[in-house]
Amino acid sequence: MLEKVTELLDEKKLGELHRMFHDMMPADIAELLGEFEGDRLTVLFRILPKEIAADTFVLMDQDKMEELLRAFSDRELTALIEDMYLDDAVDVIEEMPANVAERILARASQETRHEINALLKYPHDSAGSILTTEYIRLYPDMTVSDAFDVIRRNGIDKETVYTCYVTDRKRKLVGVVSVRTMLLSPTDAVIGDVMEENVISVNTLDDKEFVANQLQKYDFLALPVVDSENRMIGIVTIDDAVDVIVDEYSEDLEIMAAITPTDRPYLKQSVFSIWKSRIPWLLLLMISATFTGMIISSFEEALAAQVALTAFIPMLMDTGGNSGSQSSVTVIRGISLDEIEFRDTFLVMWKELRISVLCGISLAAATFIKIQLVDNLIMKNEVSLTVSAVVCLTLLFTVVCAKLIGCVMPLLAKKLGFDPAVMASPFITTIVDAVSLLLYFFFAKAMLGL
Amino acid sequence: MLEKVTELLDEKKLGELHRMFHDMMPADIAELLGEFEGDRLTVLFRILPKEIAADTFVLMDQDKMEELLRAFSDRELTALIEDMYLDDAVDVIEEMPANVAERILARASQETRHEINALLKYPHDSAGSILTTEYIRLYPDMTVSDAFDVIRRNGIDKETVYTCYVTDRKRKLVGVVSVRTMLLSPTDAVIGDVMEENVISVNTLDDKEFVANQLQKYDFLALPVVDSENRMIGIVTIDDAVDVIVDEYSEDLEIMAAITPTDRPYLKQSVFSIWKSRIPWLLLLMISATFTGMIISSFEEALAAQVALTAFIPMLMDTGGNSGSQSSVTVIRGISLDEIEFRDTFLVMWKELRISVLCGISLAAATFIKIQLVDNLIMKNEVSLTVSAVVCLTLLFTVVCAKLIGCVMPLLAKKLGFDPAVMASPFITTIVDAVSLLLYFFFAKAMLGL
Repeated sequence: MLEKVTELLDEKKLGELHRMFHDMMPADIAELLGEFEGDRLTVLFRILPKEIAADTFVLMDQDKMEELLRAFSDRELTALIEDMYLDDAVDVIEEMPANVAERILARASQETRHEINALLKYPHDSAGSILTTEYIRLYPDMTVSDAFDVIRRNGIDKETVYTCYVTDRKRKLVGVVSVRTMLLSPTDAVIGDVMEENVISVNTLDDKEFVANQLQKYDFLALPVVDSENRMIGIVTIDDAVDVIVDEYSEDLEIMAAITPTDRPYLKQSVFSIWKSRIPWLLLLMISATFTGMIISSFEEALAAQVALTAFIPMLMDTGGNSGSQSSVTVIRGISLDEIEFRDTFLVMWKELRISVLCGISLAAATFIKIQLVDNLIMKNEVSLTVSAVVCLTLLFTVVCAKLIGCVMPLLAKKLGFDPAVMASPFITTIVDAVSLLLYFFFAKAMLGL
Repeated sequence: MLEKVTELLDEKKLGELHRMFHDMMPADIAELLGEFEGDRLTVLFRILPKEIAADTFVLMDQDKMEELLRAFSDRELTALIEDMYLDDAVDVIEEMPANVAERILARASQETRHEINALLKYPHDSAGSILTTEYIRLYPDMTVSDAFDVIRRNGIDKETVYTCYVTDRKRKLVGVVSVRTMLLSPTDAVIGDVMEENVISVNTLDDKEFVANQLQKYDFLALPVVDSENRMIGIVTIDDAVDVIVDEYSEDLEIMAAITPTDRPYLKQSVFSIWKSRIPWLLLLMISATFTGMIISSFEEALAAQVALTAFIPMLMDTGGNSGSQSSVTVIRGISLDEIEFRDTFLVMWKELRISVLCGISLAAATFIKIQLVDNLIMKNEVSLTVSAVVCLTLLFTVVCAKLIGCVMPLLAKKLGFDPAVMASPFITTIVDAVSLLLYFFFAKAMLGL
């Protein structure tokens, strides 16, 4: 495909390219255009069929958008911005450098500019930031056939026509009616009679993740967004909700791997900006890990007296870390799926306690057998029974502590208003490392008399 | 809400409960009913308005479904299964124990049973497993007004009416037309003229995650599923795609934390089954970690000669693990968002190499300063300049190796057909631990002459 486009472009067969684009989906064209730059990119964009140009534009990568916007004439800018859905226009403007954003706004019609500015005022994570004001609004005293007239007149510009919102003359939301219901009703039925009066709506300031979850929970195609006085402001559509869910997922993953989250694709980020998103956490965790080192230092004599003890340190630390991160991720997932709440803390702890005892005993037993068979019989390391007992006891208690810490920390973070994802593997591991060593040296001192 | 229902139930005010449920959404009722069990659960379910009973049922937890199914009479079973969408019925049957599943199938009408059995044959992860056969099918020679008649006649039973699929008389998919397009066209327009002929479709055997990604990419409400001869089999709707995305997310998280994935909510799982999903990985990783221990053992003499070295082991291991998991998670995320492919391997490695050198130098510098200030000046541990150099050099090389291993392993896993998520923190950490110790002792031997 890419080769064909390059060839046609080289031969200046623009008419053929135009016809080719005509049969393609915006998402595919956006992907294809991402392979071009400079004048060739601008030329290709200009021959896109008018009806899909704006749709294609909003699906392109940020740097390609910027390149195109800088190349466009004022007239082209106006045409583009007026063809976009408002929520897409807001997204584009938010991602552009200030001078480009200002130029776009300056070229938009007064009405569009006014609406974009209103949307730009909502906080970054709110329902307001992802809503669109392009929806179908009906009045309760219309008939179904009136409603279809409204859809026919305005539908072309609306992001969805399938769910229509019924308001009174003061824009207060009083009901919702689907095109499906209207199609299945007689044409002279009154909207007020066929509409659903129990409307699930969200507030402009609600968290956008909450909005996405609501859309998913109720299997809706769109959700109305109202202000504090129940006045209809706009709608959030399912496709935006899916994007929120996917973004949230990818943000969670990054936080869980101790990376400052970003929206930009990996291959588009500079080495320096990736370094910036990773180094603070590495430093912080490294500093925490030196405390673990200090614990070892303070037991240097014990270790020197019983050198065999050192060899088990990595296994104890790793197993503790893995046990803890299993619990923390399980709880983080449960919180984000709304399955676990803070009031379940003791329930979760009691469950993890039992699981950790089971896991701890299994692992300790396996280690005991492994020491006797591998270390003593095969490797002839002669690990004494007491040292084996110290290792196995430490393992059991480490697993129990690790799992309890792992399950409590995310719940605590949530309660304190932090993102529970912060309490994933890296932090839990750092804490558990120290705990496992303290336990190890405690048992070693007690049982080996060091 | 829960209190109110309990009260009404105790006072046997079933009519009032019925009216209350009438105004509620199925998802909310399902949540509420989840708090009841036994006879009270069955009584509550029986008074649900008929038109939402099936919708509510499919949103309940698995154990509640089973409880209800066992309590239902044959007649109730038949009514329930016939009211469900086919894809929901298939999901329910797949989750139930064999005897319950058989009883449901036995009570279904012959036609329903036939269709359910056909859907049950598709592989677990395929598009076929999430499709529904309840869609609106049109012929190209119909007019828009004919099409609306078809929707009015059949729409009530269909999962979506908003996207209609156009096939020839042999069921071969030839086009797609939205209700929106039809509403905006004259009623006597011919479907063949207004339909979109470039249909994006998926095959019954395509991976369901791929199908969900396609739906998201193209912002569709539904995607047609065809067999190998382009015959229309069914559709996958956006709400099912969202579920696939969320499930996939939660599965990825579990794999990344070394847990065997499960569909069941944490609080509903038994302690024993959670233990079973965690212990194999803990054991496997523990065994791998003993190799790290063996590396330490083989350098016991060196450690005994320079006890100061031991104190830096946790910091080196942890920082290596964290650096590696940053890279692996970044790449895993890139793969699942289709941003990174196997052919980008060298690009990714070159990027990670530069990032890791930057990170390694920053961390080594911080450690050097920390050793001089904290260990030597404040703690008076007297760490020699050579030991500091060994630690800092190890740190630099560990970070570089960790990041390269971290970015390559998920790509390799993908290439070999494994889930890249397996190559997250626990596995990377285990590998990197060994690498960091080998580097540490290599530098220690070379520079301290041990």
